[in-house]
Amino acid sequence: MTSKKLVNTVAGCADDALAGLVACNPNLHLLQGHRVALRSDLDSLKGRVALLSGGGSGHEPAHAGFVGKGMLTGVIAGAVFTSPAVGSILAAIRAVAQAGTVGTLLIVKNYTGDRLNFGLAREQARAEGIPVEMVVVGDDSAFTVLKKAGRRGLCGTVLIHKVAGALAEAGVGLEEITDRVSVVAKAMGTLGVSLSSCSVPGSRPTFELSPDEVELGLGIHGEAGVRRIKMASADEIVTLMLDHMTNSSNVSHVPVQSGSSVVLMVNNLGGLSFLELGIMADAAVRSLEGRGVKIARALVGTFMSALEMPGISLTLLLVDEPLLKLIDAETTASAWPNVAKVSVTGRKRSRAAPAEPLEVPDSTATGGLALRQTVLVLERVCATLLGLEEHLNALDRAAGDGDCGTTHSRAARAIQGWLKEGPPPASPAQLLSKLSFLLLEKMGGSSGALYGLFLTAAAQPLKAKTDLPAWSAAMDAGLEAMQKYGKAAPGDRTMLDSLWAAGQELQAWKSPGANLFHVLTKAVQSAEAAAEATKTMEAGAGRASYISSARLDQPDPGAVATAAILRAILEALQQEGV
Amino acid sequence: MTSKKLVNTVAGCADDALAGLVACNPNLHLLQGHRVALRSDLDSLKGRVALLSGGGSGHEPAHAGFVGKGMLTGVIAGAVFTSPAVGSILAAIRAVAQAGTVGTLLIVKNYTGDRLNFGLAREQARAEGIPVEMVVVGDDSAFTVLKKAGRRGLCGTVLIHKVAGALAEAGVGLEEITDRVSVVAKAMGTLGVSLSSCSVPGSRPTFELSPDEVELGLGIHGEAGVRRIKMASADEIVTLMLDHMTNSSNVSHVPVQSGSSVVLMVNNLGGLSFLELGIMADAAVRSLEGRGVKIARALVGTFMSALEMPGISLTLLLVDEPLLKLIDAETTASAWPNVAKVSVTGRKRSRAAPAEPLEVPDSTATGGLALRQTVLVLERVCATLLGLEEHLNALDRAAGDGDCGTTHSRAARAIQGWLKEGPPPASPAQLLSKLSFLLLEKMGGSSGALYGLFLTAAAQPLKAKTDLPAWSAAMDAGLEAMQKYGKAAPGDRTMLDSLWAAGQELQAWKSPGANLFHVLTKAVQSAEAAAEATKTMEAGAGRASYISSARLDQPDPGAVATAAILRAILEALQQEGV
Repeated sequence: MTSKKLVNTVAGCADDALAGLVACNPNLHLLQGHRVALRSDLDSLKGRVALLSGGGSGHEPAHAGFVGKGMLTGVIAGAVFTSPAVGSILAAIRAVAQAGTVGTLLIVKNYTGDRLNFGLAREQARAEGIPVEMVVVGDDSAFTVLKKAGRRGLCGTVLIHKVAGALAEAGVGLEEITDRVSVVAKAMGTLGVSLSSCSVPGSRPTFELSPDEVELGLGIHGEAGVRRIKMASADEIVTLMLDHMTNSSNVSHVPVQSGSSVVLMVNNLGGLSFLELGIMADAAVRSLEGRGVKIARALVGTFMSALEMPGISLTLLLVDEPLLKLIDAETTASAWPNVAKVSVTGRKRSRAAPAEPLEVPDSTATGGLALRQTVLVLERVCATLLGLEEHLNALDRAAGDGDCGTTHSRAARAIQGWLKEGPPPASPAQLLSKLSFLLLEKMGGSSGALYGLFLTAAAQPLKAKTDLPAWSAAMDAGLEAMQKYGKAAPGDRTMLDSLWAAGQELQAWKSPGANLFHVLTKAVQSAEAAAEATKTMEAGAGRASYISSARLDQPDPGAVATAAILRAILEALQQEGV
Repeated sequence: MTSKKLVNTVAGCADDALAGLVACNPNLHLLQGHRVALRSDLDSLKGRVALLSGGGSGHEPAHAGFVGKGMLTGVIAGAVFTSPAVGSILAAIRAVAQAGTVGTLLIVKNYTGDRLNFGLAREQARAEGIPVEMVVVGDDSAFTVLKKAGRRGLCGTVLIHKVAGALAEAGVGLEEITDRVSVVAKAMGTLGVSLSSCSVPGSRPTFELSPDEVELGLGIHGEAGVRRIKMASADEIVTLMLDHMTNSSNVSHVPVQSGSSVVLMVNNLGGLSFLELGIMADAAVRSLEGRGVKIARALVGTFMSALEMPGISLTLLLVDEPLLKLIDAETTASAWPNVAKVSVTGRKRSRAAPAEPLEVPDSTATGGLALRQTVLVLERVCATLLGLEEHLNALDRAAGDGDCGTTHSRAARAIQGWLKEGPPPASPAQLLSKLSFLLLEKMGGSSGALYGLFLTAAAQPLKAKTDLPAWSAAMDAGLEAMQKYGKAAPGDRTMLDSLWAAGQELQAWKSPGANLFHVLTKAVQSAEAAAEATKTMEAGAGRASYISSARLDQPDPGAVATAAILRAILEALQQEGV
C-alpha cells in the first residue's frame, strides 16, 4: 500500500509544488521549460554575484523558500529526492549571466548526483565563458569514521545560503564569497533524529521503526540513520545528539565546546508537531547552555525537510561577530524567519508577575448584610446543594455526563471550607468577587466559569450601593454576562432559565417602596416554575444540545440547582427576619 | 498504544514548548508563574492598546509565534487543546495594564471554554478598572446549518491578530480597533481537510480514517470533521473545498465570488509535507483564479496547527486596499512570513528561458582529425562496447546492479544513431562537447554524468590547439574534473583507474617530437594493466564501496570499459595509419 498524499500525479509532484510556491511568492519567477525558480527582480542584479542552489524536491521550503534579496538568486529543483537535470542547471546559470550578473556561485549539498550534475553544468558554463564557482556543503555529523564520499549536505546548507546571500548583496566578488563560505561550511555540524520514516509519493515508507525506537543520524532522503536507539525523553535524546555531534573522537564532529558561540538551528524534518519542536528547542538550549556554550541566535522552524518525516535536526554553526552580522542581514526570502538581533544566551527570559491590585475597603462595607446573615445564607445554600447531589447527578445522567450534583457539592464544600478560614468580606461586592474566584478555582469546568462570570458581573453594581434596586441591577449584570460569554439564551434548557425568570421578578425591586420578601418569594417561585418547564425544552446550548430532544423528559439539572440556591437564600433570610 | 512523541512529560508539554519558544525568541518574555508570553519591549507600549490572545497549546506557532511589534502584545496558553486558566489571562491583562497600555483587546477563538475563561478574566479586569474589550473570532465554514454555538475559530484568527496589530501599532484606540476587527472577522471563512488524525501526547489518535478516505471540515483539536470523502486528486479536493466555502446556501460561507479580492491562507495543519502544501497552494490559486477571484496576497505555511495532523486548511479573507495595507504592515512576529507587497493574481510568473549561446566555429575546425577518421574511431568504440555488453554486466553483477554493460551499450547505440543524422563536428573541442551532451542525455545516471564531465573538461584545452601536447592536456583536464566532482581517486576501483594510468603515459606527448602511436600504445597497455589491477583493490567510491572487499575478486567493469575504449581508439587510428 502506498501512502496517502495530496497530489495530482506522482510524476507531476515536483512541478506542481514549485508552481505553487512561485504563484504565491511574487518575488519568484519560473524559468520557462525548466524546474527553475529565479528572483523576479533578476535584472536589478547587474554587476552582482549570482547564487544558485537546489537539489531534489521533497525538502521544502528548501530551496525555493530561500530565494530573495539577501539570499539565493535562484534554485534548480529535481524530481522528489533526485538531482536536478544538468540542462536546467545550465539554463539557470545562463539566465543569471544574461541578466548581467558577473559570476555564479553554485551552492551544492554533498551528494554524488548533485555534485556530478552541478559540476557538469559548471564545466559547460565555463566552457561558454561564464565564471562559475562551486561550494559543496557537507555538514552531517552522523558518521564517526571518515567516508570517502565525505559528509552529507543537510540543514546547515541553509546557513550557507544566508551567509553567501549577505555577501553577494553587499557587493563582494565571486572568489571572496567562495573562499569565505567554504570556511563557514567547515565550521558546522548537523544531526537528525526521527520517530518514523517518510514516503516518496507513489511509494511505501522508506524504513520501518518499532513503537519504542527512534532513528538517529538520518539523512534527508528517507534513508535510515546510523543507529536506532530506544525511545527516551526529549532531554535525553537532545543530550545524546549534542554529545555525538561535539565528541572530538567523531571525525565529523563540530568543535563546539565550553565558551564557544554558536547559531543553533532546530529544524522540523517535516511532520513533527510544532509543540514537540518547541520542547526539543527548549531541551537544546538548556543542554547547550549547561555545557557553557553561548547561543548567539536560535532558528526554530521548518527549513530543510524530508517530506513528512516526524523528526528534527539540530545544526550548530560556530560564529564570531562578523559572521553573525551576515546571519542578521536583511533578506526577503519567504522561508527565512524573523530573528531578533539579540543573543539567546545571557538575556532575561521572564518578567515578574504583576502585583495584585490592593483591596480598597468599599463604601458599602457596613451597609450590606450583617456578617452573621451572610454566613447563614451561605451555609444554607451549601447544605441545600449537598442534599441535592444524588438528585442532580441522576438528572444529569439523562442528558450529560452525570456529574452536575458532584460539581455543585464540590462548590458547596469549598465554600464551607472557606467560611471556616475566617469571616467573609463585609461588603457585598467583595463577597461576590471572592465567591467568584473561589468557584472558578474549586468548582472548575464550565459551571465554575459560568458562576464566576455571574458573580463577577453581579458584584459591579453593588460597589456603590447595596439597596434593593442595586441588587436587582446586580442580577441583571450577572445574567447579561452569562448570556454574552456562554451564548445561552432563555429557553435553551440551561441554568440560565431559572435565573432569568427570577431576574424578571426582581425588576420590581427597582420601584420605590418594593418589599424584599414579597418580591423575592415571587422570584423563587418563578425560578422553580422555569426549572420545571425545562422538561419540555429542546437543548440549545451546553452539552445536552448534542442529545435528541425525544430523550429529554426530565428538567435540566443546572436550572434545578439555581432555583434551589435561590430558595435557600430566601429561606435563610426569612429565618433571620431581615 | 499511545503515539510516540518527543516530550519530557505529558503534563509538562505546554510549559516546555512555550519555554522553548521564548528561549529562542528574544522578543518574548515569560510572565513568571504563568503560561504567558509577552513582548519583551512591553514597557515601550505606554499609551498604546494591548492585544492579547491565546488558547490551548497544540496549535503552534499559534499563538506565541504571532507576538511582536505589529501583531500581538502577548498570549496566554492552556494545556494541550485546553482553555487557558482565568488567573493567567487576568495576570496578562494586569501586566500589560501596569506597563502603561491604555486598554486591552482580547482576541478569542470561538470555543465555549475560551469564551468563558477570557470573558471571566475580562469581567474581573474591568472590575479592577482596566478597559478590556473582546472579539470572538468564528471563521469556520464547515457547518452548512447554523449552530447555536456559532462558527468555530480557526486559522483566520491569525489574520485578525495581524490587522489588530497593525492598527494598535498605528496608535488607533481600543474601541475603533474592536469595531474594525469585528467587521473583518465577519468577512472570512476557513475550511480544513486531512489525511488522518493527530494524537494528544499520552493519548491515542482522536479518530481513524481508512486508507482511501479524507476528512473534510475539521476543527483544530483533532475532532472529526463534517464528512468523509473518498481520496481524490489535489485539484478535486481543493475544488470541493472552495465550492463548499463559497456556496451561498451554506450559512457559514464566505461571500467570495467572481471579481472579489481576497487574501488566501494555505495553512499546514501540522504534519503535511511542504511538497503537498505547495501542490495544494498551486491548486487553490488556479481554482480561485478560474472563478474570477483576484488573489491579492497568498500566505503559505504553518500558522495554526492541530499538533501533527497531516492536512491543510484554506482561509479566504475579503479585502480592500485599506485592509491590505494592514496585512502588509511590518511586524517582528517570528511566525508571520515575509510576504511581498505585490498582487498574486495578474503578475507575470515566468521568464523566458535564456538563449543558447551561438556556436562559433573554432580555429581548430580544420586542424583536427579528418572527418572520416573521427567516424571510424567512434564506430570502432561503439562496436567494442556493444561486444562487451554481457561481459561488463557479469562483472557488475558481482559488485553493483549488473547494468554496466547495458549502460555502455545504450551510449554506443546513441552515438551510432547520432552519426547517422549527419557528420560529426570537424573541431575536436566541439566533437567532445557534443558527445558530452549526448552521453549525459542518452547514457544517463552517474556514468553519463561522469563521461559528460570528462568530455566537457577535456574539450577546453582543444579549443586553441589540437597538437599532441593539447591532447595530453585534454586528458589531464578530463581526469581532474572527474576526480573533483566524482570524489574518486586512483586506486578506488573505478573507471578512473584505467584513465588515470593512460593519462600518466600521455604526459610523454608534451615532449617535443613525441610519437603518437608509440605513446598511445603504452598508454593503452598501462590502462589495461590498471583495469586488471582493480581486481585486488578495495572499492573507495561508487556503488561498490558498500560491498566488503572479500567479495570483490573480479576487475571493476568501469575500468575495463574505459581501457577497452582506449584500445578501440588506438586500433582505429592504426588501421587508418594517421
